[in-house]
Amino acid sequence: MNVKLVLAYTGTNYAGWQIQDNAKTVQGELENALQILCGQKVRVHGASRTDAGVHALGQVAHFSPPQKKHIPWQKALNALLPKDISVLKAEEVNGNFHSRFSAKAKIYSYIFWIEPNFVYPQRLPFVWECGDLDLEAIKGVKDLLVGMHDFGAFMNAGTPVKTTVRTIHWLELNQGFYPQEINLRIKGDGFLKQMVRNIAGLFWLIGKHKVSKDFVFELLENPIRQMWPPTAPAKGLTLEKIFY
Amino acid sequence: MNVKLVLAYTGTNYAGWQIQDNAKTVQGELENALQILCGQKVRVHGASRTDAGVHALGQVAHFSPPQKKHIPWQKALNALLPKDISVLKAEEVNGNFHSRFSAKAKIYSYIFWIEPNFVYPQRLPFVWECGDLDLEAIKGVKDLLVGMHDFGAFMNAGTPVKTTVRTIHWLELNQGFYPQEINLRIKGDGFLKQMVRNIAGLFWLIGKHKVSKDFVFELLENPIRQMWPPTAPAKGLTLEKIFY
Repeated sequence: MNVKLVLAYTGTNYAGWQIQDNAKTVQGELENALQILCGQKVRVHGASRTDAGVHALGQVAHFSPPQKKHIPWQKALNALLPKDISVLKAEEVNGNFHSRFSAKAKIYSYIFWIEPNFVYPQRLPFVWECGDLDLEAIKGVKDLLVGMHDFGAFMNAGTPVKTTVRTIHWLELNQGFYPQEINLRIKGDGFLKQMVRNIAGLFWLIGKHKVSKDFVFELLENPIRQMWPPTAPAKGLTLEKIFY
Repeated sequence: MNVKLVLAYTGTNYAGWQIQDNAKTVQGELENALQILCGQKVRVHGASRTDAGVHALGQVAHFSPPQKKHIPWQKALNALLPKDISVLKAEEVNGNFHSRFSAKAKIYSYIFWIEPNFVYPQRLPFVWECGDLDLEAIKGVKDLLVGMHDFGAFMNAGTPVKTTVRTIHWLELNQGFYPQEINLRIKGDGFLKQMVRNIAGLFWLIGKHKVSKDFVFELLENPIRQMWPPTAPAKGLTLEKIFY
């Protein structure tokens, strides 16, 4: 038996998901709380290794409880975790369930703050203050990314992967919470390292008229990362949902 | 000549608007920044003395610059202010302009988080986690408050006022940023001390079926504060806009 957790967190004060020495991480906080509850070290596996500053509304993680005793995991963990991490749901699942390997698809959102003269402090931790963007220009290219493509040009250096081919199901561009926000939402079967932030960087280039539609074709035809497009800041990114 | 400022702030880390000894306040931070820019103490007058923990998207303040030299107030103040206070706009106005006495109307919003089992950490500083509410019941009474009434039952003890009669122009109840949020917005010509938080407290009573419509009539007919309705927590409240 495994326990599956759905988690929300504000990433601002964390060095990302993955446990590290001498840095506060989401995985680290969860393992600290579980150690108190279980009286021993318990490894937590996350579906997505979100970067430092990236937020989540629907991260998924799992662990194998070392004892059979019943614990109300959601309430017990929320009582021990810091206020910027919250367990939205905890359920017992089959021992074969793996948060990362069982995942079928994910939704991420990226928020651009397009008002050049100010930003609401309320939104500062969750948006990229990138100035004005030509939304119509972005809408004109966004669907070129939909479908199965080699996204090698959108992957930053990191852990080697077998293939850089991924499928994007859809991309949405809508007004966000405030009229000064554009919310980019992407659903796909999987994402390469910093792929969403690189797509956001591409849309920033398009929205600023720094590149044209041809550049998007070029990136898809030449799937090699050559410092283009730029990686948008982590704080605009939120992991919204994971499908199993 | 006066300078009119439109301000947004996250109230979480402040003991409210009004300057106090030994406490961080929004007015205090503004006066500190102006002292650096002007080389002398400058008094800032705010339109609304928001309580500790209350947020603003459109607070208005004014001051009289002691020298005639031109200063780009918005950029200069934003460079000096902490990140959780932001000047959205600064403009030179007539010396007769007074942020408080010239105000014609205000909009406040109050956000209820109605999902009982969890709250997104991203929203924790801006909502009241009050559990499920019967939205239809609240909608059934809200317009009883619209118009000119004696709101004495909705005023907490504080600075004496000449009259407790105020006019509410409209009340709106809509879904907030997330489906788990109900956003109450109120426009009125002026508000008594903690009046919006007491209206939110009344709607909480109604939404929990603790009182009926008759109770609302009673409060309007007997405008004496007798510990009813309860004052909703400060953190759910945002000063949205002030009209001149």
